[in-house]
Amino acid sequence: MSDRGLLIVFSGPSGVGKGTVRQEIFSTPDHKFEYSVSMTTRAQRPGEVDGKDYFFRSREEFEELIRNGQMLEYAEYVGNYYGTPLTYVNETLDKGIDVFLEIEVQGALQVKKKVPDAVFIFLTPPDLNELQERLVGRGTDSEEVIAKRIERAREEIALMSEYDYAIVNDEVPLAAERVKRVIEAEHFRVDRVIGRYRNMISEKKLSDK
Amino acid sequence: MSDRGLLIVFSGPSGVGKGTVRQEIFSTPDHKFEYSVSMTTRAQRPGEVDGKDYFFRSREEFEELIRNGQMLEYAEYVGNYYGTPLTYVNETLDKGIDVFLEIEVQGALQVKKKVPDAVFIFLTPPDLNELQERLVGRGTDSEEVIAKRIERAREEIALMSEYDYAIVNDEVPLAAERVKRVIEAEHFRVDRVIGRYRNMISEKKLSDK
Repeated sequence: MSDRGLLIVFSGPSGVGKGTVRQEIFSTPDHKFEYSVSMTTRAQRPGEVDGKDYFFRSREEFEELIRNGQMLEYAEYVGNYYGTPLTYVNETLDKGIDVFLEIEVQGALQVKKKVPDAVFIFLTPPDLNELQERLVGRGTDSEEVIAKRIERAREEIALMSEYDYAIVNDEVPLAAERVKRVIEAEHFRVDRVIGRYRNMISEKKLSDK
Repeated sequence: MSDRGLLIVFSGPSGVGKGTVRQEIFSTPDHKFEYSVSMTTRAQRPGEVDGKDYFFRSREEFEELIRNGQMLEYAEYVGNYYGTPLTYVNETLDKGIDVFLEIEVQGALQVKKKVPDAVFIFLTPPDLNELQERLVGRGTDSEEVIAKRIERAREEIALMSEYDYAIVNDEVPLAAERVKRVIEAEHFRVDRVIGRYRNMISEKKLSDK
């Protein structure tokens, strides 16, 4: 009886601080999930370690993985590929270990189509929390500025609706702690544990003489 | 912009230890939800305080509340009524404060029909966690005993499927902590926060010249 691990997708708008919060989460040992290292075709920078910061691969190798259906998600950005190799994710989940992905929004939407029962966590900018104040402004903002703010907020909310949880990145340690709490609580969800109980009963019936 | 509080329904099979875990949860100040005191027609026992342990009411008063639709849920047990008065729950939720109910399974199913977006937490007996061992037994159990165990487990699982979370009461402090984590995480669920953001935007549009 080994449950499959949870796939945790941690994402949010560009520039929200996903990497910083992820580093904070993994800086302490009080978590049981593993980080899935992304793959990229961009050049390795000084100090970066292959297999730790990224898996650095050639464009040819990356494209072959795409062709063979070996990428859980990927995107091209400024001429380079970034993505999540499927093998590590599947092998780790099969061992009953949760896998944590930190990926861009487009990638998260790809994962949602393939693994709908993953846990989708959206990191929101602190200003989304201060939305009301910002929208109202200081009374000196032009209608154009206000309209732009509303449009930006609307886009962020549209993205958020695809996710299970929204966590505000107001302070990095707080945001990291909330992410850990959410992952812990997800393990208690009935739809995640009930199958195990049902299996035990049916196994018992089958194997019992 | 005041969000309504969450209604938290804490329940589980008879004898699982709901009251003990609830007392543990409320024994420390690190929670923000309030306990909804139940109402009963049974006699007040020595040491019990009206309005703290229960609201002690006459059968006539209780039945009038039922007739007036003033009970969120109720059940009759050994000739006495037990139930949750609606007024306190609604007033507290309206203030933006979460309300914690500790009630029997029949009551929880009544609440589920009326307030489907409440958070339903099922406390499971530790032996449900040890189900496999128990079902297999010591090799000395009769088929009848094993069949009875399987039937009991099946009933418990059928109840559990109506809930959002299943928490094992293996050790009371651990179970209490898990309940608190689940309630905390629920506040980050997108479907609970997204309405607030949407409201801000539409309010802004309406009030802005």
